[in-house]
Amino acid sequence: MPNGAQALMKTLVDAGIEVCFSNPGTSEMHFVAALDSEPRMRAVLALFEGVATGAADGYARMADKPAATLLHLGCGLGNGLANLHNARKGKVPVVNIVGDHATYHTRYDAQLQSDIETVARNVSPGFVRTSTRTAELCGDAVEAIAAARGYPGQVATLILPADVSWGEGGLPCPPPPPPHADPADDACVEAIAEAIRSGRRTALLLGGRALREADLLAAARIAAHSGVKLLAEVFPTRLQRGAGLPPVERIAYMAEMAGVQLAQIEELILVDAKAPVSFFAYPGKKSYLAPEGCRVHTLATPSQDTTASLEKLVAALGAGQAEPWLQPAQRPGRPRGKLTAPKVCKAVGHLLPENAILIDEAITSGLMLSAMTAGAPRHDLITLTGGAIGQGLPNAIGAAIACPERPVLALIGDGTAMYTIQSLWTMAREQLNVTAIIFNNASYSVLNVELERVGADQAGPKARSQLDLRGPVLNFAQLAQGMGVHGVRVDTAEDLVKALEYALAQPGPHLIEVLVPESLSGARRKLLPYLLRALPSLPQPVAGALKRKLAP
Amino acid sequence: MPNGAQALMKTLVDAGIEVCFSNPGTSEMHFVAALDSEPRMRAVLALFEGVATGAADGYARMADKPAATLLHLGCGLGNGLANLHNARKGKVPVVNIVGDHATYHTRYDAQLQSDIETVARNVSPGFVRTSTRTAELCGDAVEAIAAARGYPGQVATLILPADVSWGEGGLPCPPPPPPHADPADDACVEAIAEAIRSGRRTALLLGGRALREADLLAAARIAAHSGVKLLAEVFPTRLQRGAGLPPVERIAYMAEMAGVQLAQIEELILVDAKAPVSFFAYPGKKSYLAPEGCRVHTLATPSQDTTASLEKLVAALGAGQAEPWLQPAQRPGRPRGKLTAPKVCKAVGHLLPENAILIDEAITSGLMLSAMTAGAPRHDLITLTGGAIGQGLPNAIGAAIACPERPVLALIGDGTAMYTIQSLWTMAREQLNVTAIIFNNASYSVLNVELERVGADQAGPKARSQLDLRGPVLNFAQLAQGMGVHGVRVDTAEDLVKALEYALAQPGPHLIEVLVPESLSGARRKLLPYLLRALPSLPQPVAGALKRKLAP
Repeated sequence: MPNGAQALMKTLVDAGIEVCFSNPGTSEMHFVAALDSEPRMRAVLALFEGVATGAADGYARMADKPAATLLHLGCGLGNGLANLHNARKGKVPVVNIVGDHATYHTRYDAQLQSDIETVARNVSPGFVRTSTRTAELCGDAVEAIAAARGYPGQVATLILPADVSWGEGGLPCPPPPPPHADPADDACVEAIAEAIRSGRRTALLLGGRALREADLLAAARIAAHSGVKLLAEVFPTRLQRGAGLPPVERIAYMAEMAGVQLAQIEELILVDAKAPVSFFAYPGKKSYLAPEGCRVHTLATPSQDTTASLEKLVAALGAGQAEPWLQPAQRPGRPRGKLTAPKVCKAVGHLLPENAILIDEAITSGLMLSAMTAGAPRHDLITLTGGAIGQGLPNAIGAAIACPERPVLALIGDGTAMYTIQSLWTMAREQLNVTAIIFNNASYSVLNVELERVGADQAGPKARSQLDLRGPVLNFAQLAQGMGVHGVRVDTAEDLVKALEYALAQPGPHLIEVLVPESLSGARRKLLPYLLRALPSLPQPVAGALKRKLAP
Repeated sequence: MPNGAQALMKTLVDAGIEVCFSNPGTSEMHFVAALDSEPRMRAVLALFEGVATGAADGYARMADKPAATLLHLGCGLGNGLANLHNARKGKVPVVNIVGDHATYHTRYDAQLQSDIETVARNVSPGFVRTSTRTAELCGDAVEAIAAARGYPGQVATLILPADVSWGEGGLPCPPPPPPHADPADDACVEAIAEAIRSGRRTALLLGGRALREADLLAAARIAAHSGVKLLAEVFPTRLQRGAGLPPVERIAYMAEMAGVQLAQIEELILVDAKAPVSFFAYPGKKSYLAPEGCRVHTLATPSQDTTASLEKLVAALGAGQAEPWLQPAQRPGRPRGKLTAPKVCKAVGHLLPENAILIDEAITSGLMLSAMTAGAPRHDLITLTGGAIGQGLPNAIGAAIACPERPVLALIGDGTAMYTIQSLWTMAREQLNVTAIIFNNASYSVLNVELERVGADQAGPKARSQLDLRGPVLNFAQLAQGMGVHGVRVDTAEDLVKALEYALAQPGPHLIEVLVPESLSGARRKLLPYLLRALPSLPQPVAGALKRKLAP
């Protein structure tokens, strides 16, 4: 009869959990030992827990099923908390396995003892359980798996005391039934169809699972038939976009700009999305962004089947034969000359391969990315769902493991990259096809913007120094090499294009450090973000003129 | 009238909090801006929150007063949790300032919204407060400071909503009264004196604040007068040791060995320490380590004045004139030949400068460090109080800032170093006199030991791969250079000595990567830890023979 850990391992893989992103310690040694009892489980070692949790997040976004994490007591969970927060906000399924002291040991309050459940509830409010008996461990695991992959997806945490893991008498359990969700009911669909027919200015706000092809096509049919505007939440978990897919305008990060995008909307229809709110609060500015008097409807909650709900709405409106507008294929030209952040985005748009996975955590430097890749070959875009930076590099690990045949490009800000820089080592160890582009502008650039937006722009040199990453300037190419990743540093568009072509042609991970000036400074800093995020929603002549002015 | 942040800044420095280890975001921009209003506050930027919290921990251990941290909402706190755990377990004062959304913004559940208080309680159970009014902010801060620096020292968390920070009408408050603790009462002292006089085998177990010179001298007088054994807790917050100070034997990490150390003890007297328990649980082994029948007394709790309590015990025993045994000055010779971990420890013992701060997070590779530095010049030793690895490099930052005139040596394992490797950048930026020695044995070596200790030693190749840091081997010298720190890699004792001499002679940070074989493998792995940790307590001829066999 297997021990607890061995039975758990079998239960996990039987339920389709075939990857475990791990950073183990002593209390997890039996789980680690059990890896060899189960050839179907792939264990991917991370050197820091935030890498493991972010990788599990990225994996699930692309695999549409959870991976497991293996974390070492409360402190390991703490180190993984930020990226679990991102998964929670993105409604991404993750099954945490957090090792704990043996049940009889906790009362001695040894050095690593802490209250794991409380911390876990912060990121997995829907399912936290400490398994206390070996015979019941696999039943607990099945419930965790069911909770994680149900609708909406969520983080589930199973706390595994060492003696429950090593105890004899483990009983593997069969997998939980597949997740199921119902569509919106008829009355709800009819009420929303009625609102659309009213002729009032209407927008469909798509989020969560509603940003995949089937949903986008249904929504685009409705748009074509009824003239509703299509919007996407500001930070999508996973957005399918590019040539041949219906384009959808993302709500801007800047509340001021989002206000412009939403200003005329009288009916806002939510599909696995929340009514938009400002990312942060700013003195004298409002937090809730839907205009006054705008009626908000929910077509599908995160617990419902968005695709079926949208199809019902298509049918109710008679939009089934409407021709959705699809993004035409279109790439920007090859950038030239001294590098700037927009030129980097242009190079990505110029070279983005078919079926790529694009991870955007470039904050200010990525402002032009959406515009520059809009007509690139079809790709998936992954963004910072919870705002806890340090997500992009770990996400890239998980995405590459979920989709080994697809190229992964991760565009990451310098400040952001440093939170989980240990990711590079795992990329090298697993020889993942990830190209990380690190924007080195030697600044927490977004905070220079925010300093002014919050009205604290009288800040002096000490304040500015807190947003300044110079003295010394980081060398990411060297950091990459120190972790076994091929790394280069470039400061011209020509060298970037060469490096990117090389990286995309050669297997294994690559890091390209791009030296760019801060995208935004002084007066431009105040104005540009509003304009840039607005590009997709501006009338074409204005947008065209702006693009010519701003783009490289 | 100052705004909330400006008033808070003044209140902090008036109470002696003159350093803030920060990793800010948008919600902390007013606090950042307020830095320029207060020249007495030094802000030290970290690229990851675990660096900031670990630096605050190291600072307070050496400065004997708290620093502030500045963290960005719940996720920033999460990233800092592991090192706050270490501070909590070490009873180290830290004042966290955690920025939050504006009070009116939280109900919108924006991306970065999470339950900060619950996570904070995990590490600062004694004081968590969300300040909700600008006029009351400084009063809340004074209570936080009082809580942090009282007896026992603790982590206090003040949550600072953005609107409370930017609100007008901040009212600076005067500092709290100095912390105060009473000594043990007469009856308690007399009962313990009586136990000592009984002639039963007695040990004084010193922890927390009782490992500084005054306490050690008092304890050593008692030892000299009454023959009690002096023990220190396994992972001291700060231990003063070296030539001229009374030596004290640390309880071993390995429970099996600690059992040997404690086997004969009939009366165990605790001074700011807990009765020893095993770090982890192991199948079939006991967690509570004091022998059966051993009576446990508490001379001073962590809330009491240990120095005065020990002095009272000295007086009660009439030990005031007893001559304490002091460690004679004695250094190991210069190591030669191919590097091993013990030779690295030998080199440190050979060269340790006067009045150094020694940080030990070398896990298996540091096994010989205690023995090799026992007779070195007087120094302070800082260890991993909470078991959450990734403490050493951040602690070094804080210690160097608290004591700019003292050299800091941090001995760190390779696996451990990677949790908070971003520390190197802050060391470079602040030009701190830190020499980090990274033991690169390309392994989570301690876990290879633990795998066997927990009885999971039937592990196969997949399990072993989870403890293996090869493929690729990290290059720490390159990582250091990528963060602006002078870094070298050595694999002979001669080169190490040269590099260490250079690092100690030149200002600013240095990293020396030592390539060493895993200290422990196969059969030796099973046996050696027990023996090595035992060295200080073994009879001199046995210890001498062992040292000759094991040392370089």
